[in-house]
Amino acid sequence: MAGNSFGTLFKLTTFGESHAAAIGGIIDGCPAGLQLDLDKVQVELDRRKPGQSNITTQRKESDQVVFLSGIFEGKTTGTPIAFQILNEDQKSKDYSHLKYAYRPSHADYVYQEKYGHRDYRGGGRASARETACRVVGGAVAQQFLAHYGIKINSYVQQVGSIKLNKNYRELNFEETFKNKVRCPESTVAQEMIRHIEQVKKEGDTIGGIIQCVIQGSPVGLGEPVFDKLHAELAKAMMSINAVKGFEFGSGFSAAEMRGSEHNDIFESTNKGIKTKTNFSGGIQGGISNGEDIYFRLAFKPIATLMQKQQSVNDQGEEVELEGKGRHDPCVVPRAVPIVSAMAALVMADFLLRNQSAKL
Amino acid sequence: MAGNSFGTLFKLTTFGESHAAAIGGIIDGCPAGLQLDLDKVQVELDRRKPGQSNITTQRKESDQVVFLSGIFEGKTTGTPIAFQILNEDQKSKDYSHLKYAYRPSHADYVYQEKYGHRDYRGGGRASARETACRVVGGAVAQQFLAHYGIKINSYVQQVGSIKLNKNYRELNFEETFKNKVRCPESTVAQEMIRHIEQVKKEGDTIGGIIQCVIQGSPVGLGEPVFDKLHAELAKAMMSINAVKGFEFGSGFSAAEMRGSEHNDIFESTNKGIKTKTNFSGGIQGGISNGEDIYFRLAFKPIATLMQKQQSVNDQGEEVELEGKGRHDPCVVPRAVPIVSAMAALVMADFLLRNQSAKL
Amino acid sequence: MAGNSFGTLFKLTTFGESHAAAIGGIIDGCPAGLQLDLDKVQVELDRRKPGQSNITTQRKESDQVVFLSGIFEGKTTGTPIAFQILNEDQKSKDYSHLKYAYRPSHADYVYQEKYGHRDYRGGGRASARETACRVVGGAVAQQFLAHYGIKINSYVQQVGSIKLNKNYRELNFEETFKNKVRCPESTVAQEMIRHIEQVKKEGDTIGGIIQCVIQGSPVGLGEPVFDKLHAELAKAMMSINAVKGFEFGSGFSAAEMRGSEHNDIFESTNKGIKTKTNFSGGIQGGISNGEDIYFRLAFKPIATLMQKQQSVNDQGEEVELEGKGRHDPCVVPRAVPIVSAMAALVMADFLLRNQSAKL
Amino acid sequence: MAGNSFGTLFKLTTFGESHAAAIGGIIDGCPAGLQLDLDKVQVELDRRKPGQSNITTQRKESDQVVFLSGIFEGKTTGTPIAFQILNEDQKSKDYSHLKYAYRPSHADYVYQEKYGHRDYRGGGRASARETACRVVGGAVAQQFLAHYGIKINSYVQQVGSIKLNKNYRELNFEETFKNKVRCPESTVAQEMIRHIEQVKKEGDTIGGIIQCVIQGSPVGLGEPVFDKLHAELAKAMMSINAVKGFEFGSGFSAAEMRGSEHNDIFESTNKGIKTKTNFSGGIQGGISNGEDIYFRLAFKPIATLMQKQQSVNDQGEEVELEGKGRHDPCVVPRAVPIVSAMAALVMADFLLRNQSAKL
Repeated sequence: MAGNSFGTLFKLTTFGESHAAAIGGIIDGCPAGLQLDLDKVQVELDRRKPGQSNITTQRKESDQVVFLSGIFEGKTTGTPIAFQILNEDQKSKDYSHLKYAYRPSHADYVYQEKYGHRDYRGGGRASARETACRVVGGAVAQQFLAHYGIKINSYVQQVGSIKLNKNYRELNFEETFKNKVRCPESTVAQEMIRHIEQVKKEGDTIGGIIQCVIQGSPVGLGEPVFDKLHAELAKAMMSINAVKGFEFGSGFSAAEMRGSEHNDIFESTNKGIKTKTNFSGGIQGGISNGEDIYFRLAFKPIATLMQKQQSVNDQGEEVELEGKGRHDPCVVPRAVPIVSAMAALVMADFLLRNQSAKL
Repeated sequence: MAGNSFGTLFKLTTFGESHAAAIGGIIDGCPAGLQLDLDKVQVELDRRKPGQSNITTQRKESDQVVFLSGIFEGKTTGTPIAFQILNEDQKSKDYSHLKYAYRPSHADYVYQEKYGHRDYRGGGRASARETACRVVGGAVAQQFLAHYGIKINSYVQQVGSIKLNKNYRELNFEETFKNKVRCPESTVAQEMIRHIEQVKKEGDTIGGIIQCVIQGSPVGLGEPVFDKLHAELAKAMMSINAVKGFEFGSGFSAAEMRGSEHNDIFESTNKGIKTKTNFSGGIQGGISNGEDIYFRLAFKPIATLMQKQQSVNDQGEEVELEGKGRHDPCVVPRAVPIVSAMAALVMADFLLRNQSAKL
Repeated sequence: MAGNSFGTLFKLTTFGESHAAAIGGIIDGCPAGLQLDLDKVQVELDRRKPGQSNITTQRKESDQVVFLSGIFEGKTTGTPIAFQILNEDQKSKDYSHLKYAYRPSHADYVYQEKYGHRDYRGGGRASARETACRVVGGAVAQQFLAHYGIKINSYVQQVGSIKLNKNYRELNFEETFKNKVRCPESTVAQEMIRHIEQVKKEGDTIGGIIQCVIQGSPVGLGEPVFDKLHAELAKAMMSINAVKGFEFGSGFSAAEMRGSEHNDIFESTNKGIKTKTNFSGGIQGGISNGEDIYFRLAFKPIATLMQKQQSVNDQGEEVELEGKGRHDPCVVPRAVPIVSAMAALVMADFLLRNQSAKL
Repeated sequence: MAGNSFGTLFKLTTFGESHAAAIGGIIDGCPAGLQLDLDKVQVELDRRKPGQSNITTQRKESDQVVFLSGIFEGKTTGTPIAFQILNEDQKSKDYSHLKYAYRPSHADYVYQEKYGHRDYRGGGRASARETACRVVGGAVAQQFLAHYGIKINSYVQQVGSIKLNKNYRELNFEETFKNKVRCPESTVAQEMIRHIEQVKKEGDTIGGIIQCVIQGSPVGLGEPVFDKLHAELAKAMMSINAVKGFEFGSGFSAAEMRGSEHNDIFESTNKGIKTKTNFSGGIQGGISNGEDIYFRLAFKPIATLMQKQQSVNDQGEEVELEGKGRHDPCVVPRAVPIVSAMAALVMADFLLRNQSAKL
């Protein structure tokens, strides 16, 4: 119940602090017989790693994942798949200035209060470094989903007030990773990059929005009534560091819509029963209806700033803090593979759960 | 794994279809020794029941909850608290017109595909009637939370494009249930009511937004990394029928904010360490920081319309459907107690989970 | 985590004290489309009910199970199956003599200490009455298993020192319920009955042993490494009131055996790969191997005696207690259907869990 | 649900095959602030490691545990505690003779059928090597329990027909690890050792019995009705490789006892309410009553023999197999720390679960 596992049948448990020896995890419940392409897992991880470009942190970590069990002769064996990623430069630095200070909008204060004892080097367990393990778990899940024809694409839709104003159907997802901001429209991408560069120059940070699209889902995934597909997706996404909001299908705009406008009318097609519109976002009554599943999530600006900030320490005394050197000015470019990973974990779990829906 | 339970230590499991003999549930894990005021539970349930006003469904159901176990001499015993609510008018009507037809934006089609066999009378298990059981479970959780000084208030913030443009700190929550739309500002409430009446007259339905505020939370609730407090709140809220989006604290607006603007600066006060602003929504790193927790959720317009709609049946043939008689034109007024109930279940669970955080 | 649920995918949650309004439960996860014979469920329940013969308690309760949800047109719908059994004569009696006294080898003392507040009428939640709900859940599971050709038979093998010294293969299970002690060999059954009658006459009680045999299991049920098939069977059986020991296959006798004697040699037959002997009890490495699964469990003598006993009350003062009227002199005859029920719940759960073992 | 986790609040998840790169695990839910003595963990592990004496396997593996996370400045932080043990000599050998053959009374056949694909080198995941991770998890749990004054002692009570015929109260547990068979009475220990040496010389193996005693438990551990303390202990013990039976307190002997003889009479003492006898084994109604908890478990003889055995391969063809070199002739000496470890995991979990029993 300590919150370090995700999923029920296809389950990922992660461990590790930003400055411990390693981070890693165990994938339990991946069916046997899946041919795993480990290079593809590393590709996903490389999309998240620090030091990729001038708009992400300059920290250099190779983030090589090593698998320790559960795979034999290239295929999963049905036993736990353990993996780890060594933390490379965890030893050298002096973190004593963070021992007693509570950085604003970080988790220092709440960890200290909750646990009474915390690893104050970097963010400890609250560091976004932990999400590297989600990417590994999700990359395995994505290969499992590919077996069933399910594909997941995520991309940056907004940085600050710079928005990509196109429906996902008009986009070419293959363009997403061709630029450093991970927006599939290159002109908008350039604007976003310039904006991040400007924000960075000012020692500040900026928020953004990522959209995710899941295609090829069968009808029937999701479990009424509490474990609705979009409810688990929401939990998965909100559990990613810095996420503040989630909406699927029509989302918040539904609040202003009429039923006569919002209802998705069924029609009979040569591909079976389909809906004419898709305000439902591919999910009705919490269960996938075979249409595209799509959702958006909002990220806040990163809390570590390259400028001075007031705060307090554990004695309640005022202190002044300033971020050092190597932090992201905007979280969304590196968060794209994390969003896809979490979506994959949710879908893989529901695929397995759905196997016992009927005789 | 079939999705009918919510929570880990404070757990609610519900059962029942809209037209079966009864609906009900089991609350497992409520600590022993809690004095329960069963009348207060009924008050919450009455706030959700049909037939309360002209802007809700005219169906009349008394929705009396009966407790069967787990309470002795007025106090919880630590054993399962079972309860049930009889379904009153489930027998009479003819539902054969719904046996094969799939109502647009309802769960008929996905249930048929997922289970191969479904109770087609009304919405079956997908009916919002199921949420009555959440209200009972949540009302018990609220009494548990009151023991620790935690209070939950929800209210309607928007109906269609009619918005309550005030910060929750300026509102008097005691006004909320004094009008039938459950908006604590009576002038805005009147506008909302007129709007719903108009929509209803047109045989249509309209969406809306509910805000929820949790006050008095201790520091430390929420479990990193997957079971963050806001991640579980998101799941809880998204699992309520018709919800399409969730945001907490700064929410989607954070996407356009700078870190220097968004960071909540700590200060030392005579109540301990507090933040000057609360864009974090009372949650940092997934853990409550002692500030007010607040979030918003968007509801779509109800799918059952009092007008003709095209659809298909299970053979893929075109059919025409029209809602009959007694449905809500807008879901938010009756959803207010459901939102508070789900919030209470989340908080109660995390209170118990937090007991093992440290020695 | 409060311990009132059993199973993971095929899950039974029970509620109710011996003297509350009702007992009952929810079966969650039974796949949709199963034709349920509710009369057969009642037959199993009748085998457990009190008042069946002179060697069981003379309490008369009709124990009629009523199903409230999850079944439509005779078939399961995949939604929760709720049921209840009314407690008939819970109101009249005076239990004040038990309010403060701790009956020897009952749960009064530990409940009081654990919960601080308890329902002292009868055994409360600790009463064996709770097992009626297991029988209902297990009877549904047995119908699910029958769909896959899996059959479960339990019988009394020993009462005090009276033993049935035959291998189960030499028995005719159809004889089991033809006598009141539920031993399939009528001559041994008569001895057992006489023994119980004698013990009862002396105001005393006596222990016994039940054997259970599961036939028709496919290869592959059970999950390494902690959830081995026999580990879950052990938990299931040990959770039944009064059980003190569990062994499967060779059991405790294996401690004195040599490997050369104990190993079950594989051979190729026209039914596939089989073992020549079955000391493994149908389970190897925690997974069913397709042979008969068999195990034994020991029951202690019931603690309520029709004679005076010394004890203490909640103040630590000495008190004298004496059982009143209507208790079983031996638990095993009525426990036979409970053992089969729990075995069925375990097998049904593993059948579902095994569906995700491989691609 | 894949069975590689044990516990609910204090949870151990393990990974690794006998011939993969490493084995290891994650302990999730250990409260923060526990001072951990890692040397003591290694001591427990050394008691289980191969190559300790002539009556255990001659395989030499140093089995050094390395902790990767969750500990900071010597204390637990409340975050996952990950650890691993490298597999030392996994690469060299040729296992192709085991690729298709099914060793008698091993898990080869069932794994092949269940998963369709298996790591055939050694026992893969079914190897008892996996239990090293349980010892690590249990050693951490034992330090947690020591904080509450709870102590666990296990010892060999029987090897083949050589029995230690003394009540545990007459034994000095400090003697247990002074001899290689782990029986606290040296004269009986010598007999057991000679017996194992003789069996080994004959290329055979022999079974045995281990007793475990838990002292210092508070009243109240265990959760009715399914998760009774002895039910979880039974599951924990039966999940250890080669265990065939479990009994606690009076155990199987209770079947022949009278209630008047078996009931444990309460008395008031200066240590509070105690029982005069302890046939209950420290557990009543599934909940600890403050008396010593004791139980016994039977191990079968190890299946790998140093003699020729008939078997079949995956084509159903007859093959002849013979164990090679370095296997244990008797499992119980090395199983003693495993039994204590599993007992500790159960007790630690229930200690945490009990925190939410009452207000």
